[in-house]
Parts: sequence; C-alpha cells; structure tokens
Amino acid sequence: MREVAIIGVGATKFGELWDSSFRSIGIEAGMKAIEDANLSGSEIDGLFIGNMSAGRFINQKHIDALIADYSGMATNSIPATRVEAGGASGGVAFGQAVMAVASGMHNTVLVGGAEKMTDQDDVSINTAMDATADAEWEAGMGLTLASLYAMIARRMVYEGTATREEIASVAVNSHFHGALNPGAQFRKEVPLETVLKSGPVADPLGMFDCAPITDGAAAVVLCPLEEAKKHTDNYVKVSAFAQGSDTLALFQRPDITVFGATVAASRKAYEMAGIKASDISVAEIHDDFSVSGILALQDLGFYKKGEAGKAFLNGETRVGAGKIAINTSGGLKARGYPIGASGVAQIAEITDQLRGKADKRQVANAKYGLAQSVGGTGSAVTVSIMEAI
Amino acid sequence: MREVAIIGVGATKFGELWDSSFRSIGIEAGMKAIEDANLSGSEIDGLFIGNMSAGRFINQKHIDALIADYSGMATNSIPATRVEAGGASGGVAFGQAVMAVASGMHNTVLVGGAEKMTDQDDVSINTAMDATADAEWEAGMGLTLASLYAMIARRMVYEGTATREEIASVAVNSHFHGALNPGAQFRKEVPLETVLKSGPVADPLGMFDCAPITDGAAAVVLCPLEEAKKHTDNYVKVSAFAQGSDTLALFQRPDITVFGATVAASRKAYEMAGIKASDISVAEIHDDFSVSGILALQDLGFYKKGEAGKAFLNGETRVGAGKIAINTSGGLKARGYPIGASGVAQIAEITDQLRGKADKRQVANAKYGLAQSVGGTGSAVTVSIMEAI
Repeated sequence: MREVAIIGVGATKFGELWDSSFRSIGIEAGMKAIEDANLSGSEIDGLFIGNMSAGRFINQKHIDALIADYSGMATNSIPATRVEAGGASGGVAFGQAVMAVASGMHNTVLVGGAEKMTDQDDVSINTAMDATADAEWEAGMGLTLASLYAMIARRMVYEGTATREEIASVAVNSHFHGALNPGAQFRKEVPLETVLKSGPVADPLGMFDCAPITDGAAAVVLCPLEEAKKHTDNYVKVSAFAQGSDTLALFQRPDITVFGATVAASRKAYEMAGIKASDISVAEIHDDFSVSGILALQDLGFYKKGEAGKAFLNGETRVGAGKIAINTSGGLKARGYPIGASGVAQIAEITDQLRGKADKRQVANAKYGLAQSVGGTGSAVTVSIMEAI
Repeated sequence: MREVAIIGVGATKFGELWDSSFRSIGIEAGMKAIEDANLSGSEIDGLFIGNMSAGRFINQKHIDALIADYSGMATNSIPATRVEAGGASGGVAFGQAVMAVASGMHNTVLVGGAEKMTDQDDVSINTAMDATADAEWEAGMGLTLASLYAMIARRMVYEGTATREEIASVAVNSHFHGALNPGAQFRKEVPLETVLKSGPVADPLGMFDCAPITDGAAAVVLCPLEEAKKHTDNYVKVSAFAQGSDTLALFQRPDITVFGATVAASRKAYEMAGIKASDISVAEIHDDFSVSGILALQDLGFYKKGEAGKAFLNGETRVGAGKIAINTSGGLKARGYPIGASGVAQIAEITDQLRGKADKRQVANAKYGLAQSVGGTGSAVTVSIMEAI
C-alpha cells in the first residue's frame, strides 16, 4: 500500500450562495485545490465526489460525470466516481480517493464534496435528510433526524453524562471559531444563553443546537507521498483512513449515547497511524447537532464519558486553550453544513492547520489532526488522521 | 497493487418481485454470494453497494448502512460504501471494491448492486433515469434517455453505419440468451419482426428496443488472488478494471455514434490485462437500448464501425455461433435492468462463464471475459476484464 499525501486544498465560501449554481461551486472548489497543488487539471487522473442529494435537489444524478464534464476533464475521459453516505458522503469520498492512490490505480486524484441546499424548500431538505435515518422504522413513522438526536440528548441528561448547558456549549465552541474563519457561514460568537433560549426544534434541542442549511463545496488533491515534494513543500501525510457502520435505526443499539461506528473507526485509525488519541492536537468533528459533539469527543477517546461536555463548557476545546482544539473551522454549526461537502471541508481545515495556514485560528505545533464525518445517526462514520511533515 | 480474485457470486431472480422489499433482495443476493465463496458473513471486511435511486424510490438514502445493518454486518462495524453513477452504479461499485482489495485496505469484500423499480410509477422512474442525462441542457428541455438514444440510432442510420433491422437485432440476441437463463425477467425468444413492429417509444426505437423496468439484486465476493485457493477451487482472476467519463450532454461531443468513455476505458483495460480485444470470448454489454449494443461492440474494439450491426443480425453474437458471445445472460433487455444491480450482475455472469457454470448458455473454452457498464448516454463507462484460472 503506497503512502498518500494531501498536496492542495480549496473551498468556496459556505453560506447562502444564491448567485451560484451547483455546477459552479463544485468547479470553484476543485480549481482552487488544483492551483494550491501547483498542478494543471490535465495532471489529475481520477475524481471522487461526495454528494448527498443532487438527484432530489437539482434533478441531477450522475454528479461524477457532471463534475468531470464541467471541469474540462471529461475530454480526457477521466474516471469519476460519486459516493453517497448521507452526512458522511464527503468523508467516504475521501477514503475512496485514498484507496485509489494507495492501490496505484490512480496517481493524482481530486476529491470534491458539494451540496446546494438553500434554494430548496424545507420539505425537500427534510425529506432528504430524514432519508439518511431508517426509512421504514424511523422516517416512515414520522421521526426526523433532529428528533432522533434529541432523544440522544435527553438520554444523556437522564443518565447524568451531560447537562443541557454542556450540550449547548458545543454550539458556542463552534461559533467561537466560526468568528475567526472568513469562509464560514456565521462569523459571530454566540453566548450560551442564546443557544439555550433559541426556538425549540426537538426538545431539548433548539435552533442553535442544529447546523444550518448551507451551499458550499470543498476539494483536496492527493498524490503518492513520495511524489508530493515534486509539486509543493506544503503538504501533509494521510496517516490513516478508517470507516465503520452501525444499525440504521437508533433503537436497535444497546446504548444510544455511544456511536459504535466512531469507536470502531477511530480505534482502527489510531492503529493504522501508530498513535494514541492523546497524540491528536486538532480535530474537526461532525456537529450536525450540538449533542453530536459530546458523542464525538467521547467516542474518539479524547474524553471519558461524562467529561466531554465539561470540556466544551469550560472552553478548553478552543484554539490555544487546551490540549486539543475542536472544530477550528467553525464546524458544521458555524462554518455551515453543505452536506456532501462537509467531510471534505474538514480534511481541508486539518490540512491547513498542519501546514500552518490557519491564520487566526492556527493551533500551535500540531503534529496530528483528525477528521470525523458522520452519516445518519452514526450508521456510517469515517475517521481520517493527517500528519504534519 | 495486489492481484484480485472473484470467489463467489449470487443474484436474485430478476423481474417483478412484488413480494420482496429492497432490503430483502439486497440481502438475498449478498448471502448467495457469500455462501458461494464458502465464507460466513463475519469474514467479510468491506461492503460496496451500487444503487441509483433508493433515495427517490423508497425514500432511503444511506444504502451502505442499510445493507450493512440488514446483513448483520453492522454489528462488526463493517465499512460500507454506496456509489452512484446512473446506469454504471454497479460497475463503479465493483471498481471501488477491486481498489479496496488491491490497496490492502480491505481483504475480503462483498460488492452488491440492487434496485427496486416495478412498484414505482412511470413519472418517478423516468425522472430518475432522465436525471442521469444533463439536467440543465437535456432533461430540463424535455429530453428523455430514450429520445437521446433514439437520436444516436437515427444518426447511425443516416450515416449508413447501421440499419434499423441491425439495431433491432441487438434485442433479438439478448432475448435468444434470456430464454436460456432461469434468472431472467423475459425467458422467451423474440423475432426481429416483433421488435420492429413494437409500439413506438422514441422513433425509431420501439418498446422492444428498450430494456424493461426490473427489480433485482446481484453480488460478488472479492479477495486477494493469492488467498482465493483457501476458500474455493472455483474462482476467477480480475485482470483489469478501468473507467472513463465523457460530457454529460450528448450534443457536446464531436460524434454521437461513438462513446469515447467506452473507447478510453476499454483500451486502458486491455493494456492492464495485457491482452487484445480479440482475446475476449464472452462479453456482457450495457444494452439499455438496442442501439447501445452496436455502440458497445464497436467502441470496445470487437468490430469495426458499420460491422457490429451485421454481426447481431446474422446471429454470430450468439453462444457457440461466433468468436465472441454477447450478453449470454440475456443482457439488460431480457435478463432485466434493475439499474444499480446490472453492473454487478454482469460480473457474476462473466464469472460463471469463466468457471464453467453457465449451463445452457455456456461458452466453450473461454479464457477472458469482459463486462461493460454505462451511465447516462455514455458519460460514465466501466470496463472489467476477468480471466479463467
């Protein structure tokens, strides 16, 4: 298995991009990543795209071919592959690309993630998102993704492993960092009181516990580690990629306050990278709902059960404050959540952190960074570990 | 790059499976393949799923997690990945699985394809299929997939590279073989007159030029070639997998009677396998419309432009009749076309041919077999080559 490097990253601004089409944002992110890698498009020999719902949102399936076409790469008949895994679509696309380079099947690969959501009506958005839960046993019974996560939050409070304030403080942490990220959808801090008092979505979760609806795209360029230096001095190593699954329906799990897929994928990733959880200095985690942040920090092994909420509340998850900085990009909550793009955007943020290009949100002396991407209620999870060179 | 073997295959019957759910057919095919490989489910360490439209058809995205869950493998947190490339979804899923084993990321992998279509209304089916063409420049203007293929057929007739009778005879060939396949949706021969006189769909294509709406699932199991013998004596080698892309919209191509993606992918595949087109004895090609069969035989290099139609019409593409047998399974036209399943079902048929398990449709002494899977109007094409051991 060849070792793999990330040699370029790019992203559009995240937000309500009403002047842009799905096509244009996909191309913009890809071109930025290719330029960042000092390549021309003709040097790319494989494309991987994470996208959840273009079939429903813009009546366009076959996004693989669309992006190959509109990037001009179809003229070279470039192999292009779209993967979908709900919210983990971008994370899984990244994993496929890592395999493609590691196997030698491809050499220089572009991974993109994109979603155009703000011009959709609420029914369309929610139908698409709820379809990542169990259609027969959950969505078909009226359960939404928000209400499923609300059940997890209630259970945590009932068991005493997190308080309502601790759960809300996950959103406060993301907004703290979002204020520092020029590409974020929401560039302002939000006090704990605002989250707690925000309009109810699914009790106990309010509006500010939920990631927003967002347009955006992100891309990264991969090549074999031994060739990275030919292109740039500014690259990072992909030390591990691992992926786990769990039951689609929440009720079938022994404990809904643990995402077994995160546990499994992260343990495998630490083993691949030859490190421990405590070696990670910066992580992007999938805070589609505030409560997911608590789950992530515990399941990834950063904190013991019952301790993650305290870390968010006392602010030690902020850049410069503790031993690990969480969601320096602003996370899904403040950077924004264009579903298929987020898993790739996380990789881009960790790459910038490890090569010292994260400006006001830069973590000092980070050697290892981690990205966690989640589909549904943890039924698919990817964990990637990157290493500074 | 490790060499890869196919050690087991399985498929449901293709047809109108009104007594089965999407979930049950996916599981049935997977279990058959696992049994055929003499494995238990716990020995599988990766899952890849080709599916086009479960999000639209059954409001279920995240099919990766669904299949992991319902096969019982989610309890092992097995990594599961869904890919979508329109009609090439199954072919692309197979390619991802080959990379997974070749790279060493996974060892024993199940690739499945499934689609449940017959309980959908026509609008839903056509909206989904047309979404594999260009949504803005084709489907948005009222063009359907059938009308796009009809334009290709008209152009061929105009240029004199195929007659209407030759185009229709692609369907005759598929039905000839479908009659021999107990798993096919249509197990009867169809005379040329019937195809020519069938009700118009998009002139000159009639009902019998178009593959049917089908429910079905197929699966294959892969492992490293050097480990295949541990499991079974009945395996084949994957000699090549290659993939190509083209413009999404037909009008943007220099010549609509050539699928450039098939040309590019097949040339790369022959090079990987170290063979020529003439070394192939049996091929499954993507006859979603009859005219696609002409394109395939020319673009794959089996026949010169203008000669493929003659081969279909004179019957030399039938098992035992000529130097290459085409669509011995019955192809998409007679075996049936459950979209995401077809690319995987083709691999299963070629595997059975190469290990002498194709019963009445067995090709004698086949050393190499090829499968071609197509998305949209050739905007994504996969070509796989398997080799008898």
